[in-house]
Amino acid sequence: MATLSERLLGSPEGSFTDLELSRAYAHDGTGLQALLSFLRMQTKVRSPEKISIIYDHIVPANNSETANLQHELRDFSKEAGFDFRDIGEGICHQVMSEGVCLPGEVVVGADSHTCTLGAFGAFATGVGATDMAAIWATGETWFRVPQTTGVILEGRLKGHAEPKDVALTYVTRLGMDGATYRAIEFTGEGAATTAMEGRLTICNMAIEAGAKAGLFYSDEKTVSYLAEFGKDADRQEPEDCTYADELYLDLDDIVPSISAPHRVDNAVPVDKYEGTPLDQVFVGTCTNGRYEDLKRFADIVRGKKVAVRTIVVPASKTALQKCIETGVLSDIVAAGCSIGTPGCGPCLGAHMGVLGEGEVGLSTANRNFKNRMGVGAEYYLCSPSTAAASALKGEIASPEEKR
Amino acid sequence: MATLSERLLGSPEGSFTDLELSRAYAHDGTGLQALLSFLRMQTKVRSPEKISIIYDHIVPANNSETANLQHELRDFSKEAGFDFRDIGEGICHQVMSEGVCLPGEVVVGADSHTCTLGAFGAFATGVGATDMAAIWATGETWFRVPQTTGVILEGRLKGHAEPKDVALTYVTRLGMDGATYRAIEFTGEGAATTAMEGRLTICNMAIEAGAKAGLFYSDEKTVSYLAEFGKDADRQEPEDCTYADELYLDLDDIVPSISAPHRVDNAVPVDKYEGTPLDQVFVGTCTNGRYEDLKRFADIVRGKKVAVRTIVVPASKTALQKCIETGVLSDIVAAGCSIGTPGCGPCLGAHMGVLGEGEVGLSTANRNFKNRMGVGAEYYLCSPSTAAASALKGEIASPEEKR
Repeated sequence: MATLSERLLGSPEGSFTDLELSRAYAHDGTGLQALLSFLRMQTKVRSPEKISIIYDHIVPANNSETANLQHELRDFSKEAGFDFRDIGEGICHQVMSEGVCLPGEVVVGADSHTCTLGAFGAFATGVGATDMAAIWATGETWFRVPQTTGVILEGRLKGHAEPKDVALTYVTRLGMDGATYRAIEFTGEGAATTAMEGRLTICNMAIEAGAKAGLFYSDEKTVSYLAEFGKDADRQEPEDCTYADELYLDLDDIVPSISAPHRVDNAVPVDKYEGTPLDQVFVGTCTNGRYEDLKRFADIVRGKKVAVRTIVVPASKTALQKCIETGVLSDIVAAGCSIGTPGCGPCLGAHMGVLGEGEVGLSTANRNFKNRMGVGAEYYLCSPSTAAASALKGEIASPEEKR
Repeated sequence: MATLSERLLGSPEGSFTDLELSRAYAHDGTGLQALLSFLRMQTKVRSPEKISIIYDHIVPANNSETANLQHELRDFSKEAGFDFRDIGEGICHQVMSEGVCLPGEVVVGADSHTCTLGAFGAFATGVGATDMAAIWATGETWFRVPQTTGVILEGRLKGHAEPKDVALTYVTRLGMDGATYRAIEFTGEGAATTAMEGRLTICNMAIEAGAKAGLFYSDEKTVSYLAEFGKDADRQEPEDCTYADELYLDLDDIVPSISAPHRVDNAVPVDKYEGTPLDQVFVGTCTNGRYEDLKRFADIVRGKKVAVRTIVVPASKTALQKCIETGVLSDIVAAGCSIGTPGCGPCLGAHMGVLGEGEVGLSTANRNFKNRMGVGAEYYLCSPSTAAASALKGEIASPEEKR
């Protein structure tokens, strides 16, 4: 019996295989690097309709140099017939999750968090920009089929414990190199009860444990999520299979958690850092910038005022539009938050909310590496609800507290 | 009989006077320069409650250095007891126009477009950052009372001709040095029928003709606008007075206009540039980022799709919130526009939509100086409706056309 990765890649663990890809995508940063490599190849694009370029990293352009580079890739993409998404459409992984990526597909993206899309029962992994250039030329790439770590989710989340807390917890339990070159399959009754947006959050962080991919089996939730985007999708029946490793997590035991600077794999209950003064709270990213995340945040700040500067960046235009239509955006703005252009926002430290030296931030992102979001700054990671409770106090606070 | 400037400054034209200021404000850029000068004075702030700092130019911070500088000014402002507005509150002039600046006041801002606030029947003008530091210390500054150019507005705007077209037209008629060191008083029946937001747009561009100030008399429209912000305001009765110069403009003759690169004072009817291909459209700024501007834009793009990347940046959080609540924001997002954090956006070319070399932009801003919004780029200026019609076509187009 095969793991989901073996089924999707059509080969047993440890074997090498060449595969035609269902889709390959890049963003404004890696896309340009891919273009430079591709131009040196002096060849043609094989299947342009399967290539997506999504501008998300530095959008809109932060200076003339960026604008020049973006202009070049934009022109090339349109000429080549790529699926091109300009500034403001959203983060590449999120845009791909909105009815583009389907169960059973093999997808690569020139970004480490491509593993997000494993939430659909697809094999999705990050590749380098030069690999991407070769993929533009050939439409395929090679894989060494990974071993799989099974993460068996039991029970049900309660209170303000959220999928992000599950993610911080499993990364901490595995360690940041605990799943290197492996796939992580999320199964068990807790997997079945996790909504699609939660699965996306959980798969998004597989790379933080070193994994090539994080995967959920496609089920009714997957099918009905994709139906909303007008897409038919198949369910996948799990087979009994042997995992290289197993980790059992009881969702009943998960609590709102914090990963402290400068590591992801050191999550502890929020209480441990309660009272830590904050200079900035950031809610967004491919981990937690979806409508459901912003709604959770809004549910806590509604009718109140944040006590610290708080930047909210929807992960996509679709998420933004849903926030507008449901009143979530109005609640967030009324609470005193600043809204940014859909995209990666300050996550990569390139613009739109970089921290100063000695400043302390709290973020719903997936990484808090040293100097990433500001030279000499410190970043704590948490869920949208913890971000909301903390924004209201201006210091790290648990959403479980009486407010 | 006195001009409005003479009445507000309490001295005849040409005289010098020292005045205590009603309010003095600066933004993140000039505020920091003022702080550096102030610290060298080794003195205390005289009237901190009259000093506002509004973060609008590079918000949120675009890099660690900016973040460090903003951190310093933020800390100082809070300690000093300034009226401090953090990122996302909006453009300084717009924030001051939302119930802060009142008729009869004398206001200075460390930004050239402080003249915007003359729309309330206040004397409002820009000062340098070192002047601002001295004002923090003393609460007052000196003025040489300017001569006044009277711009007499007759008739009424029709079709898609808008206050911005009036502004482009009078600046062109006066020339960019046509009112140097003068005040411009806008009077006549056309002034009376212009709504407050239009008056703000018209006064905003007084500096583009070299003027120190642009002024409207306070009337019922002013009083009822300020009442919405909970402020009582007085009407000002115009007196007969002699202007150093007069310009008559018949609003019936105003048409949608365009100022071509790289000057403001060369406005012509849109038709002249119709068909010019665009790389980017930008709607926002202290000139045209108000709710009414965004609504005009939305009225044209509603239910359609823009054909070029289009960045919309509300001038303030209040404007953003009104756009959310009225459905205007939803319409703009649905049309494919990218939304940015309330503030100056790409207007100053520092981030959030800088143009690349050879790119052509259309903007509702007040300035299209060479290299300002992108090295080697070209910028055309227009009204929100012209921006909307053009965004839909991807090239400069008149809003008057059949669509």
